[in-house]
Amino acid sequence: MESLAKKKVVTFGEVMMRLSPPGVATFAQAQSADITYGGGEANVSVALAYMGLQACHVTRFPDNNLGKAATQFLRHHWVDTSYVIYGDHHLGLYFLEKGAIHRSSQIVYQREGSSFSKIQPDMVDWTEILKEADWFHWTGITPAVSQGAAACCAQAIKTANKLGVTVSGDIHSRSSLWNYGKDPRDIMRALIDGTDIVIASQFDMDKYADAVKSEKGSFIDQASQFMKEFGRIKKVIDKDRISVSGSHNRIKGKLWNGQQLFESEEYDITPIVDRVGTGDAFAAGLIYGMLHHEDAEAIRFATAACTLKHSIEGDANLVSEKAVLKLLTGDLSGKIQR
Amino acid sequence: MESLAKKKVVTFGEVMMRLSPPGVATFAQAQSADITYGGGEANVSVALAYMGLQACHVTRFPDNNLGKAATQFLRHHWVDTSYVIYGDHHLGLYFLEKGAIHRSSQIVYQREGSSFSKIQPDMVDWTEILKEADWFHWTGITPAVSQGAAACCAQAIKTANKLGVTVSGDIHSRSSLWNYGKDPRDIMRALIDGTDIVIASQFDMDKYADAVKSEKGSFIDQASQFMKEFGRIKKVIDKDRISVSGSHNRIKGKLWNGQQLFESEEYDITPIVDRVGTGDAFAAGLIYGMLHHEDAEAIRFATAACTLKHSIEGDANLVSEKAVLKLLTGDLSGKIQR
Amino acid sequence: MESLAKKKVVTFGEVMMRLSPPGVATFAQAQSADITYGGGEANVSVALAYMGLQACHVTRFPDNNLGKAATQFLRHHWVDTSYVIYGDHHLGLYFLEKGAIHRSSQIVYQREGSSFSKIQPDMVDWTEILKEADWFHWTGITPAVSQGAAACCAQAIKTANKLGVTVSGDIHSRSSLWNYGKDPRDIMRALIDGTDIVIASQFDMDKYADAVKSEKGSFIDQASQFMKEFGRIKKVIDKDRISVSGSHNRIKGKLWNGQQLFESEEYDITPIVDRVGTGDAFAAGLIYGMLHHEDAEAIRFATAACTLKHSIEGDANLVSEKAVLKLLTGDLSGKIQR
Amino acid sequence: MESLAKKKVVTFGEVMMRLSPPGVATFAQAQSADITYGGGEANVSVALAYMGLQACHVTRFPDNNLGKAATQFLRHHWVDTSYVIYGDHHLGLYFLEKGAIHRSSQIVYQREGSSFSKIQPDMVDWTEILKEADWFHWTGITPAVSQGAAACCAQAIKTANKLGVTVSGDIHSRSSLWNYGKDPRDIMRALIDGTDIVIASQFDMDKYADAVKSEKGSFIDQASQFMKEFGRIKKVIDKDRISVSGSHNRIKGKLWNGQQLFESEEYDITPIVDRVGTGDAFAAGLIYGMLHHEDAEAIRFATAACTLKHSIEGDANLVSEKAVLKLLTGDLSGKIQR
Amino acid sequence: MESLAKKKVVTFGEVMMRLSPPGVATFAQAQSADITYGGGEANVSVALAYMGLQACHVTRFPDNNLGKAATQFLRHHWVDTSYVIYGDHHLGLYFLEKGAIHRSSQIVYQREGSSFSKIQPDMVDWTEILKEADWFHWTGITPAVSQGAAACCAQAIKTANKLGVTVSGDIHSRSSLWNYGKDPRDIMRALIDGTDIVIASQFDMDKYADAVKSEKGSFIDQASQFMKEFGRIKKVIDKDRISVSGSHNRIKGKLWNGQQLFESEEYDITPIVDRVGTGDAFAAGLIYGMLHHEDAEAIRFATAACTLKHSIEGDANLVSEKAVLKLLTGDLSGKIQR
Amino acid sequence: MESLAKKKVVTFGEVMMRLSPPGVATFAQAQSADITYGGGEANVSVALAYMGLQACHVTRFPDNNLGKAATQFLRHHWVDTSYVIYGDHHLGLYFLEKGAIHRSSQIVYQREGSSFSKIQPDMVDWTEILKEADWFHWTGITPAVSQGAAACCAQAIKTANKLGVTVSGDIHSRSSLWNYGKDPRDIMRALIDGTDIVIASQFDMDKYADAVKSEKGSFIDQASQFMKEFGRIKKVIDKDRISVSGSHNRIKGKLWNGQQLFESEEYDITPIVDRVGTGDAFAAGLIYGMLHHEDAEAIRFATAACTLKHSIEGDANLVSEKAVLKLLTGDLSGKIQR
Repeated sequence: MESLAKKKVVTFGEVMMRLSPPGVATFAQAQSADITYGGGEANVSVALAYMGLQACHVTRFPDNNLGKAATQFLRHHWVDTSYVIYGDHHLGLYFLEKGAIHRSSQIVYQREGSSFSKIQPDMVDWTEILKEADWFHWTGITPAVSQGAAACCAQAIKTANKLGVTVSGDIHSRSSLWNYGKDPRDIMRALIDGTDIVIASQFDMDKYADAVKSEKGSFIDQASQFMKEFGRIKKVIDKDRISVSGSHNRIKGKLWNGQQLFESEEYDITPIVDRVGTGDAFAAGLIYGMLHHEDAEAIRFATAACTLKHSIEGDANLVSEKAVLKLLTGDLSGKIQR
Repeated sequence: MESLAKKKVVTFGEVMMRLSPPGVATFAQAQSADITYGGGEANVSVALAYMGLQACHVTRFPDNNLGKAATQFLRHHWVDTSYVIYGDHHLGLYFLEKGAIHRSSQIVYQREGSSFSKIQPDMVDWTEILKEADWFHWTGITPAVSQGAAACCAQAIKTANKLGVTVSGDIHSRSSLWNYGKDPRDIMRALIDGTDIVIASQFDMDKYADAVKSEKGSFIDQASQFMKEFGRIKKVIDKDRISVSGSHNRIKGKLWNGQQLFESEEYDITPIVDRVGTGDAFAAGLIYGMLHHEDAEAIRFATAACTLKHSIEGDANLVSEKAVLKLLTGDLSGKIQR
Repeated sequence: MESLAKKKVVTFGEVMMRLSPPGVATFAQAQSADITYGGGEANVSVALAYMGLQACHVTRFPDNNLGKAATQFLRHHWVDTSYVIYGDHHLGLYFLEKGAIHRSSQIVYQREGSSFSKIQPDMVDWTEILKEADWFHWTGITPAVSQGAAACCAQAIKTANKLGVTVSGDIHSRSSLWNYGKDPRDIMRALIDGTDIVIASQFDMDKYADAVKSEKGSFIDQASQFMKEFGRIKKVIDKDRISVSGSHNRIKGKLWNGQQLFESEEYDITPIVDRVGTGDAFAAGLIYGMLHHEDAEAIRFATAACTLKHSIEGDANLVSEKAVLKLLTGDLSGKIQR
Repeated sequence: MESLAKKKVVTFGEVMMRLSPPGVATFAQAQSADITYGGGEANVSVALAYMGLQACHVTRFPDNNLGKAATQFLRHHWVDTSYVIYGDHHLGLYFLEKGAIHRSSQIVYQREGSSFSKIQPDMVDWTEILKEADWFHWTGITPAVSQGAAACCAQAIKTANKLGVTVSGDIHSRSSLWNYGKDPRDIMRALIDGTDIVIASQFDMDKYADAVKSEKGSFIDQASQFMKEFGRIKKVIDKDRISVSGSHNRIKGKLWNGQQLFESEEYDITPIVDRVGTGDAFAAGLIYGMLHHEDAEAIRFATAACTLKHSIEGDANLVSEKAVLKLLTGDLSGKIQR
Repeated sequence: MESLAKKKVVTFGEVMMRLSPPGVATFAQAQSADITYGGGEANVSVALAYMGLQACHVTRFPDNNLGKAATQFLRHHWVDTSYVIYGDHHLGLYFLEKGAIHRSSQIVYQREGSSFSKIQPDMVDWTEILKEADWFHWTGITPAVSQGAAACCAQAIKTANKLGVTVSGDIHSRSSLWNYGKDPRDIMRALIDGTDIVIASQFDMDKYADAVKSEKGSFIDQASQFMKEFGRIKKVIDKDRISVSGSHNRIKGKLWNGQQLFESEEYDITPIVDRVGTGDAFAAGLIYGMLHHEDAEAIRFATAACTLKHSIEGDANLVSEKAVLKLLTGDLSGKIQR
Repeated sequence: MESLAKKKVVTFGEVMMRLSPPGVATFAQAQSADITYGGGEANVSVALAYMGLQACHVTRFPDNNLGKAATQFLRHHWVDTSYVIYGDHHLGLYFLEKGAIHRSSQIVYQREGSSFSKIQPDMVDWTEILKEADWFHWTGITPAVSQGAAACCAQAIKTANKLGVTVSGDIHSRSSLWNYGKDPRDIMRALIDGTDIVIASQFDMDKYADAVKSEKGSFIDQASQFMKEFGRIKKVIDKDRISVSGSHNRIKGKLWNGQQLFESEEYDITPIVDRVGTGDAFAAGLIYGMLHHEDAEAIRFATAACTLKHSIEGDANLVSEKAVLKLLTGDLSGKIQR
């Protein structure tokens, strides 16, 4: 792999300041909050940067000490921030109370009207940004934030398609967003149309597929149908997660490439350090895997990377390719390395 | 439930400052201690206040910055402190070293001669305090602290009985207390005599029952006998706890109402965040449950509330009714709620 | 046991400052590091001091505030530091990132050229130090550090042999050390020759035994052979560890005294607080056990002590004899002791 | 003073979560933020509650864990929160970087569109709230937040006037607020019209006075003119502050009652612990002073209270009446009290 | 000085756990407390140990993890704890809120009935303890704690006198102690009778001197008179302190040896880090000074040592002889030393 | 200034991990250390990056998590790290105890044999690195570290001279370094020969000047003579610092350009937050000043920047050009900016 030039991946989306009381305290108990920064797409960039790729994240921040600090966080974690845009309005925030055992974690968002939500297509020169990229990644959160963000994302995908840059999309969205008056299905379907690699649960596909669903089929059935409907899609990827408790999960990845289903090992994960961003770690692992391996290995790489994220505090996966490969040898021991 | 006026519960007992090294450190290792405040009965008030009831705690503190801080803690957690008494002497304390896995937690008390232990019946106007109450709760710790405290507690129960306020008592006590020269059995039996709802293990009932015990019967046998002896008791409640380790317990509640035994689900709890006060969370859950539900639901509610407490740092349960109800649907997943 | 005079144990080896980010953070995430001090042999002294023995550690530190702080750490934890030597050069360090679940812990050493590595035999008066000792303990790390350290260790063993002081050695070493140009086998074999009690895995014995190994035998076979080769050895001890994950291990000790194999209970340990120094806790438990009990009990004591160490932050075991004995009664519950 | 019944003061305004890196760190350096809650008017209530008065703060919070935590902060600090309103939208925030020496502190607000800014007059029953009050206090921040807040404030003042409740107003505002399209002068002049006691700098009076100012006169001239224009005003109060540096200030209060100018001592304050909210501490001291003393003493009390606030971390003054009186005896020594 | 054998100093008195919120927070604000240990006499031992002397502290602790931790603190700071006595009852505590600027620090004691207060003369073998000592130091706090403590102290002084060990006493006491029914003057006068070196303010001498004081004389007058009355006294030492504020003091020492008055430099100390224990640092400096220098130098050494203590967090002075000597050269610069 | 392209500055030197106990604690007291990274030249790059320039630092780190973390620190603070070299050996460290008032700060270095000290000229392509640079900065620390570092630095200066890049050097060194057997004067004189702008005290010039010094002249005399001897030097800059105490300094800058002496304001700085790296902040301010202003302004800018650094925790100045300009207007107030 050393002989290959470092691949370049571009991601696009909001980055929020995350404020979270120490340990598993609630805000009712807390006199301080740990600060980190995250967002579904930026988390993918951070994780890929730690695995050694060039990762460039595009976003918009307020032109103040908070927006700068958010950029500094990305720079700290090796992300290329050359295309960050600064402007008016404020930084998106989210407040996380971490749960434990059978007590749920709680997130309160304060991202409405943020600098990112005010982004407009003419603020970003996608041709310039993507000209040397190998991959572009988006998620279903971005188009839900605002019409401007959705338009920007559409523009990015269109440009990537034109430049031959592979496009992946994690199409999971949240219905609590989407408050700018457009039909999510319309927006999302247009974006999926330009996407090569889709991460989606059966629930997600159900939401955006057009075909009449007389009865709910298997993942393979549904994914095959989805690929038929959106012709550009080459693979559909998902992971199964069993939540024994908030501190104990089991996960297993699966990839359908239209012909074969590849499944990863199942990992038993306990006690969980930080559950946030594990899906983004999966996406990053998948992108890294597909850039360097065949499908069978790619899904294994994605799932192992996702597993390791559960042991990392914060939104993003900070592990090396080497650590993932070590887990893939079956070494679950976590023994001290000297 | 929204249509019901908020119920009012009154509790009575000592509140101590709890000093505990961060994490699982010992005092030999520690250069600081986390401060919180707790006591078996006040913990019940805090938990009920979080579930939306009016909870009023009666106690006595020194008239200094420490006594004030203890009161502020109760106010912070929604408890009505209008009837807190300030006076001389000092604040009761306890020093907690949290264990882990197979290492035990250690508690050292420094409560002897505290302001609370000097309380006298004429300092409290129970008729005023209980006049709009629905429930009064006491535990076996209070009468063990001092003769004054025992007399005050007896006075409260008598007044409650007169005013038609339901009385619950967690009759578990500690023999290491009780150093003022009276026979615990005499004191306790008088208090149990005025109690409607009793939380007691078989061991506890054994201690205070009068009947000759030729051989140890079942929980139902013993509870039935106990109810016969103390005619006011309507239900006896207990929970079974299996301590796999200090970090891993299993619990299950049971309620005998003289005719039927109701049992809750068994919960598997790991890794435990804070084991202290889980019995008080159970008592609070029970009181809430009995004020709003039938017996079968009440014991389920109590056990679920107790389960959630294991995930909360500090002495008291800080969870909402909603969180308990969610667990009662069988959702053990602890998934992030946004 | 109270009637016995307190036994005296002497240990010898490097003590390093340990720098470790809070929780399970990496240095890439951290803005501070927790400081403690440790080293395989000093950890044994600390553990024995907590169990009530006289424990004296011999080492060499720089004559500055860091060397003093390291000494103060040992004094704090009851170790006799009368024979610590101060001199030039610097303090050995190690940087620990604690892993979790399937993510490995990472250690980076900066101990090359430390004050300890510059120790020379004429700096230490072993006859004076060992004159009232009952036991001397060394590990395979010390001779690997430098030729001076190896010579010092050899001198200590020789003196102990002469004075009738029992010698134990944990012969596990690390090949990444040993960079002063001598053959580890030669050095180690000379030290083992003066050792009465050996802690060794089959892998370790393999490394230092002379006999041709046509095929790998059982632990008993190998230990018997090892005892034949090194005539002074009276017992060979090891523990089996199953690493389910970095947060969950199972351990079980075994002791071969040339005639009988004694095995301890197996302990299920989760979630692990600190994995470092658990082998040293085992060694300390073994020494304590052998000084006060028969073989069958000694190996049980060692394994229970080692189990408890997994719940203690830092390099050394800080538990009392009483806590170990409590675990040996089979009480795994970790219940609060008041 | 003991013979007087406790006076009741009502305040009205936004309470924000304050997020501030530890010590004098910037957000570029910080991985956590200390959390407290504050707002110009609530700070006055907290300070008065510590001095022993009944203080009731009226505001509006989001109905989530953050709004609850803000309320709990006020309860913790003895404020009556019975009239807090919960509703939609989010909690106002401000991000504080504390400066030092000649480096300025920096504040970034994220309060736009907050729950408080959406308050409407019909949400508050001022007649109920003020019926037993002795004093109502407002500041120039509240009407600047939104039209609803301004209307609510106007309603409160009108009701207070009708009920004979004394009204004080700190008329300092910030022009960076006021973005809802009304002329600040119009709004403010209407509010000042109903105000008895005004805290205002010459700059502030300049802004809202109507009279033609051919040339800038003295504080007495200007205050006299202001009192002529707004007939209800009985006193105008201000303090002079010399900022030697961000860590070292000198302050001195002055009060013009239309006939006499009373001045306080000048205090030399270094090194400043927290500069935020010192004006609110002055206002609270003034209200307390005027409720219990003559003018000459009131301005001394206000200035001494303000001085002490500089030694308190957070937005609000947490000192007792006793501490202020001690400073007023001229005891600047800060000696330990046992 | 290297040629002199290390001098040995013995001190006697209570050691308390000190609990103090971080920074200048109050208990009303705090969720944790920093832990350290201190007591007037033990602070002297710690300071002398840092200056290179043998310092041995005699006290009594509860036989639990708190008493052990207090001992470990003394060991950590180089004090000889061989003669610490363990027994029943509890550890004395004090709660410190650190003030700032013109806000006073506040101390609340919880030491009544502590293990130390229960000490009895037959628990301590002073002949054994003092046999190789050069100096014994006591303060006016110890006899105030309990009759047993006073008797123990008297016994120590008598033994020291017999063995030719120099006795110093800081005779400042607190009238809030002394609650065991004896007249402080009687107790104190007996102790002063056996004392060679007295640290006392004019106020203190006033309290214990017998002579009729028609009018208050100078320090020299009063000290001369005191020395006449208590024939053993060879020197009377005091320091003048000007408290500009709680953060800014000026100090200057003076020593009257019956013939000459020696004064130190005056030091300007700002901003003060920790004011507690500065008198003990002065006493320790004086003892060190008198053991190694003439009077003129001794008082300079004492004052410089005391000055440095103001920059050290905690009760005791942790500076080396070298640091004091550096200050005595007139180098006030505090420049970085590499 | 907006119209100018961003200037590019290159710096070269060792970056160490700095470990420093919280607040003003000593290592004897500390259980943790704050981590930051710094080095005289890298501090200049960080400061310039915050002022908006392109700053590129060249150094060598170990290829492990510590070397990566050091790089991440520089990236975080906007420095271009494209030319960082990774290799063997270890990270240089320094241990800082911060003093206060009259107590000195203490630094212990552990940098011997570090990765940086092993740098060799052929590892760096200066022509590539400097090709678009405007300025190159070095200090007297770098050549003192090792022969390789000195040779690298000489190579850099030579290349800069060739490419017309301005060279500045802070020629202060430390004699405790320089342990590789060469005469510091020889090495230093060669480097000074290629330097355009020299920061030097009279003491420093004395050390490296050749001319016979019959008697010590003024700064102007000495600087003029120095410029005569080293023909390339265009300006000599220094600052006068009066250390009232470790917490209180006064500074004033001066610049001699061969014809005129320009002096800055004198700043009174108290209480100092962090004294380390203030000289580097001065150098950075000077470089920024000279790139954008005339001499008279440049020395004012440098001194103001240096002043602000005293309020910033860590080695490097993190203030904006705007903050410096604000101070230069004479606004010393440190008032809150909103």
